[in-house]
Amino acid sequence: MSITIEQAERISEAAKAKAAAIGVAMNIAIVDEGANLKSFHRMDDAWLGSVDISIKKAKTARYFDMATGEIGKLSQPGGPLYNIEHSNGGLISFPGGVLLKQDGKIVGAIGVSGGSVDQDHEVATAGAEAFTNG
Amino acid sequence: MSITIEQAERISEAAKAKAAAIGVAMNIAIVDEGANLKSFHRMDDAWLGSVDISIKKAKTARYFDMATGEIGKLSQPGGPLYNIEHSNGGLISFPGGVLLKQDGKIVGAIGVSGGSVDQDHEVATAGAEAFTNG
Amino acid sequence: MSITIEQAERISEAAKAKAAAIGVAMNIAIVDEGANLKSFHRMDDAWLGSVDISIKKAKTARYFDMATGEIGKLSQPGGPLYNIEHSNGGLISFPGGVLLKQDGKIVGAIGVSGGSVDQDHEVATAGAEAFTNG
Amino acid sequence: MSITIEQAERISEAAKAKAAAIGVAMNIAIVDEGANLKSFHRMDDAWLGSVDISIKKAKTARYFDMATGEIGKLSQPGGPLYNIEHSNGGLISFPGGVLLKQDGKIVGAIGVSGGSVDQDHEVATAGAEAFTNG
Repeated sequence: MSITIEQAERISEAAKAKAAAIGVAMNIAIVDEGANLKSFHRMDDAWLGSVDISIKKAKTARYFDMATGEIGKLSQPGGPLYNIEHSNGGLISFPGGVLLKQDGKIVGAIGVSGGSVDQDHEVATAGAEAFTNG
Repeated sequence: MSITIEQAERISEAAKAKAAAIGVAMNIAIVDEGANLKSFHRMDDAWLGSVDISIKKAKTARYFDMATGEIGKLSQPGGPLYNIEHSNGGLISFPGGVLLKQDGKIVGAIGVSGGSVDQDHEVATAGAEAFTNG
Repeated sequence: MSITIEQAERISEAAKAKAAAIGVAMNIAIVDEGANLKSFHRMDDAWLGSVDISIKKAKTARYFDMATGEIGKLSQPGGPLYNIEHSNGGLISFPGGVLLKQDGKIVGAIGVSGGSVDQDHEVATAGAEAFTNG
Repeated sequence: MSITIEQAERISEAAKAKAAAIGVAMNIAIVDEGANLKSFHRMDDAWLGSVDISIKKAKTARYFDMATGEIGKLSQPGGPLYNIEHSNGGLISFPGGVLLKQDGKIVGAIGVSGGSVDQDHEVATAGAEAFTNG
């Protein structure tokens, strides 16, 4: 059981709608159960540097099965996971990566980058909720 | 003048339709004028290793403004561009990367991977033609 | 619309003149709208390690459409973008990367490295202003 | 004794003049005695993928103190340096990288990419000869 391309497109559409509603151009990446890229969209005028960040956020969330912001709380200087970002070819540990769940089971993750981290998290959550409730 | 997300989605849809018509699950990547990723789709059951290959094909086509298969003809042992694949963090020089043109100007490229190289090229071309004629 | 080689050379000359005026040997990199390298100059006796830093500063500024020092304010321990530097093959988030604008539109960026970060920023700004006012 | 930025600029100008004369847009990179980048210019409309290739050609020439095409003769399947391109973060072993000599001593190298390998070599040689004779 993993995410289908149709599901990924529906999640991305929900995320894009939220991004448009709050007026921020976003990069939106979705990975499957195996943390492999399933889909990606860069909205017009979204930051070029956020292509890589959105993909890394989706992967980071699935790598550790938690929202990326949770990892960032643990990776600070003096924290238990200090500088974990050096692993896996580079992690992103600030908010914007959120798990995708189906019937309580993790089937992938969405990563969003392009605005403030609060906006990124809000848009990623909108995508994830459209999936869970869809 | 570069490709928009709506154009990228339309191109991807045309490519996916061709892939479905020939019965092969494909990875489809689109880059813009600056060779930066604009969109990506992995059809269900498409090869995982083709995620990276499709993206590299799209970038390679835009890097040198020609279809990827043309580069491969020149990069063989004894050829003038032997081992050019070692540049730019890794190129893919077999067919499946095709330029996207608007009013005769190059505005991006599409890379497809998942089938035989002939099938990859056929699907990429279907996407490119839908753009040119759209 | 992107930066031309003649514009890049004029910007570099202005930056070099400022660097000479303050007595510091600088590395000066310019990228275009797509964050691809357009020109680079290492002044005599400038730090070797600053070749890569100046290029990364120019790319970082264009990746997020802001001066590099602004990113560094947000990427500190406890900050919202902590360790963002792990993305995009390595970012540089201290001052010295400045956007290049033409008629209000971003067309590239300049990155400078070789002195203190204040000096780097001063020299990059001198280059950018010569472009805007040129 | 290494190459100065003024010398690098003079070499680049000679190379650009030759490129314009033969009607090809080129990427032109110059490295110093230590194989570290000294200057780089991407002419308007030159291939994006040739940024990296021109830099790698200049470095490859200086790494082994011979024109890049000479290395390519040895790196073919069955040859004594088969696949040497895997070293040093990626070499380019086809023509276009040429040594820069002063009073018979190697002080750097020039790498050119953007046309056929014969054109690349011709333009690199024009730059190198302007230096030797300058």
